[in-house]
Amino acid sequence: DLQESMQEYHYADIAEITNELDTEQATYLIKLLDSEKTSDVLTELDEDVREAILNQLTPKEIAEEIAELDSDDAADILGELPADQVQGVISNIEDKEHVKDIVELLRYDEDSAGGLMAKELVKVNENWTVLTCVKEMREQAKNVTRVHSIYVVDDEEILKGRLSLKDLLTTSTRTDIKDVYIPKVDYVRVNEKPEEVAKIMSKYDLEAIPVVDEIGRLVGRITIDDIVDVIREEADKDYQMAAGISQDVEADDSIWELTRARLPWLILGLIGGLGAAAIMGGFEEMITKHAVLFYFSPLIAAMAGNVGVQSSAIVVQGLANDDLKGSISDRLWKEMLLALFNGLILAVILLLFTWFWKGSFETALAISISLVVVIIVAGLVGTFTPLFLDRRGIDPAIATGPFITTSNDIFGILIYFTIARWILGI
Amino acid sequence: DLQESMQEYHYADIAEITNELDTEQATYLIKLLDSEKTSDVLTELDEDVREAILNQLTPKEIAEEIAELDSDDAADILGELPADQVQGVISNIEDKEHVKDIVELLRYDEDSAGGLMAKELVKVNENWTVLTCVKEMREQAKNVTRVHSIYVVDDEEILKGRLSLKDLLTTSTRTDIKDVYIPKVDYVRVNEKPEEVAKIMSKYDLEAIPVVDEIGRLVGRITIDDIVDVIREEADKDYQMAAGISQDVEADDSIWELTRARLPWLILGLIGGLGAAAIMGGFEEMITKHAVLFYFSPLIAAMAGNVGVQSSAIVVQGLANDDLKGSISDRLWKEMLLALFNGLILAVILLLFTWFWKGSFETALAISISLVVVIIVAGLVGTFTPLFLDRRGIDPAIATGPFITTSNDIFGILIYFTIARWILGI
Ligand SMILES: [Mg+2]
Ligand SMILES: [Mg+2]
Ligand SMILES: [Mg+2]
Ligand SMILES: [Mg+2]
Ligand SMILES: [Mg+2]
Ligand SMILES: [Mg+2]
Ligand SMILES: [Mg+2]
Ligand SMILES: [Mg+2]
Ligand SMILES: [Mg+2]
Ligand SMILES: [Mg+2]
Ligand SMILES: [Mg+2]
Ligand SMILES: [Mg+2]
Ligand SMILES: [Mg+2]
Repeated sequence: DLQESMQEYHYADIAEITNELDTEQATYLIKLLDSEKTSDVLTELDEDVREAILNQLTPKEIAEEIAELDSDDAADILGELPADQVQGVISNIEDKEHVKDIVELLRYDEDSAGGLMAKELVKVNENWTVLTCVKEMREQAKNVTRVHSIYVVDDEEILKGRLSLKDLLTTSTRTDIKDVYIPKVDYVRVNEKPEEVAKIMSKYDLEAIPVVDEIGRLVGRITIDDIVDVIREEADKDYQMAAGISQDVEADDSIWELTRARLPWLILGLIGGLGAAAIMGGFEEMITKHAVLFYFSPLIAAMAGNVGVQSSAIVVQGLANDDLKGSISDRLWKEMLLALFNGLILAVILLLFTWFWKGSFETALAISISLVVVIIVAGLVGTFTPLFLDRRGIDPAIATGPFITTSNDIFGILIYFTIARWILGI
Repeated sequence: DLQESMQEYHYADIAEITNELDTEQATYLIKLLDSEKTSDVLTELDEDVREAILNQLTPKEIAEEIAELDSDDAADILGELPADQVQGVISNIEDKEHVKDIVELLRYDEDSAGGLMAKELVKVNENWTVLTCVKEMREQAKNVTRVHSIYVVDDEEILKGRLSLKDLLTTSTRTDIKDVYIPKVDYVRVNEKPEEVAKIMSKYDLEAIPVVDEIGRLVGRITIDDIVDVIREEADKDYQMAAGISQDVEADDSIWELTRARLPWLILGLIGGLGAAAIMGGFEEMITKHAVLFYFSPLIAAMAGNVGVQSSAIVVQGLANDDLKGSISDRLWKEMLLALFNGLILAVILLLFTWFWKGSFETALAISISLVVVIIVAGLVGTFTPLFLDRRGIDPAIATGPFITTSNDIFGILIYFTIARWILGI
């Protein structure tokens, strides 16, 4: 029957199916499966589906699920519940150690190492002997899905180092841990940003990393599976920001949700376009003699936008990957040379096209020179803006996409017409 | 001294420092350090720096480094060497088993599971007893940095399942492996795409996954650290593609390299702009009575571009995350409704602005109605293009950014002027 066949599936697959069901069916499925599997399914569900299902369960039923989960997943689910329900659920969890861990984790900012870590880990005291250590470890390891590393702490719970399983097995049982542990261990602070944790774990190829508090006490452990999720979500977010989508949406969200994510940037773009129109209105007197200038305004806006997006994307990525060296002025100087070089190539193409099309070398030259200046300014704005935002502690990724495109549309049109009028001497 | 202080650092940190040195200094540093550390440093270096250093080393010196590496990293480095050097290096590697592994790995497409896997893993035969198994495992584990899982194969090397270390330790040594192994194991095919492997490992929270060939034989293993690199590189690539950067470049690359990555898309944008200019030239007769139409052409192009990028980004991401359900026509219908809804809101703002600015309700209405149509078409093009590319087996990510922006510029301007002329009855 259904129950047996579902029991065969991996919880991540069941979650994928459950996401597609309506709430009634989904709740039925969750109640049907045994609790160990259900709790894992719950952590993998889309947030809105999980919320709907949990709404159908009693605090006691929710408590049963949470009791099965690792502390990090348990805290994440509890953190999503309405504040008045949390108390009821917690009081129904029997394992008081587990409750203590979860309550501690609820305190940390979601967007920090503390918000990612779990309390499940294996740790030993440096003053124990190897014998005590092996006994204690066996006990602790029961609650830990994958041991990865054995951490060594002192009497104050300060992280001192780690223990190699091999050393442990090849040393006399009466040796003190103090004399065999490896004092070098990578760790992160509890308030470290998730992106920073991801960088460290990926750089050093770690599968787990211990987390310490402000005074160096071991408070938890982050595992690579959760960091893989962080990396993917962060990449999705940056990609959406660059595309002018201001909230985390998926293709299957409602038209209303998609509108909320897309309309703000479109309105910004509209304002930019109105600004450009107003500027062009200011150059009205040129339209009779130099109508062709107006024909090229979308080209100028497009080039300003494209160059701006390219240069800001390179800076944003350099900042994200920590491989941006040198001062801001070095960087602007380099972008200027690059924009000048690219701009000249493009200007020659534009010059030839316009000259042959309209037969006026003077107009063609004016448009081409303006293009070079516009490209240089666009490149500098694209380079400077993310660097500036980053210095001010604002996520530079916001600078790419519609923001740069829009401001460059306005700058571009203004510079273009000003220079063209100056060259054509009107 | 330098040698001792460097020996203290992690190879990933030494690689970061080495990337900043000139070739002479870098080669000096590499020769200074002991070979085990150097080989790891080599795998972490930027490709161009590694190439420069390897150029300074003899085939014998390179062979010494490669001998220290896991087969996957060894094959990657060998694969970068000029073809005529590979033979020389290989003949200098003493461990013939290692050579066989590396040569096998060189055969696989870099962009596949085979290109990511290593030959180092622990496997046992289902016909062995637990006793033989433990003995063999001890031998194999020497070459494997982290064991993760013990894979079970039959006499034909076909992957049958995996073994839990706990079961192994708690069973009588005379039991056959056949009777204790877990027949369920996640695996990937050797020709699977890296992105697919990444999806599977992240979905099932795996730290290692076995790779099988066309007939199910166990041929290698992929570890999560290499998949983390795949995910990060893939995200960087998609982000750059969306920003109109056609090759993998970093902020610190030369102006020449940056130009090669940036200029192609700028030229595409230029062609789009020239097309838009030519179209506007075709509506020349409207310029005296309806100059204001021309002022709004950058706005129309910008809105068409922004809507197109938004809708294509959502589709590209949905395809990448496998959460796109329903038929293409469902998706186009939804996007049409969404674009209509957003377009109407934007059109009202535009209508009011233009009406008050220029005093002509008729012109304002014509521009606003055109905007709605342009937005709908842009949304449909943005939705359809990545879906179409994906069906044709082309990376849909190429559809975002300048490609959509440029085609939408041209479509947008053409639709806008056509509709405006029709409404204004000229
Ligand atoms: Mg249940
Ligand atoms: Mg959390
Ligand atoms: Mg790494
Ligand atoms: Mg976890
Ligand atoms: Mg998980
Ligand atoms: Mg970011
Ligand atoms: Mg060496
Ligand atoms: Mg490879
Ligand atoms: Mg996962
Ligand atoms: Mg590897
Ligand atoms: Mg590595
Ligand atoms: Mg991709
Ligand atoms: Mg544009």
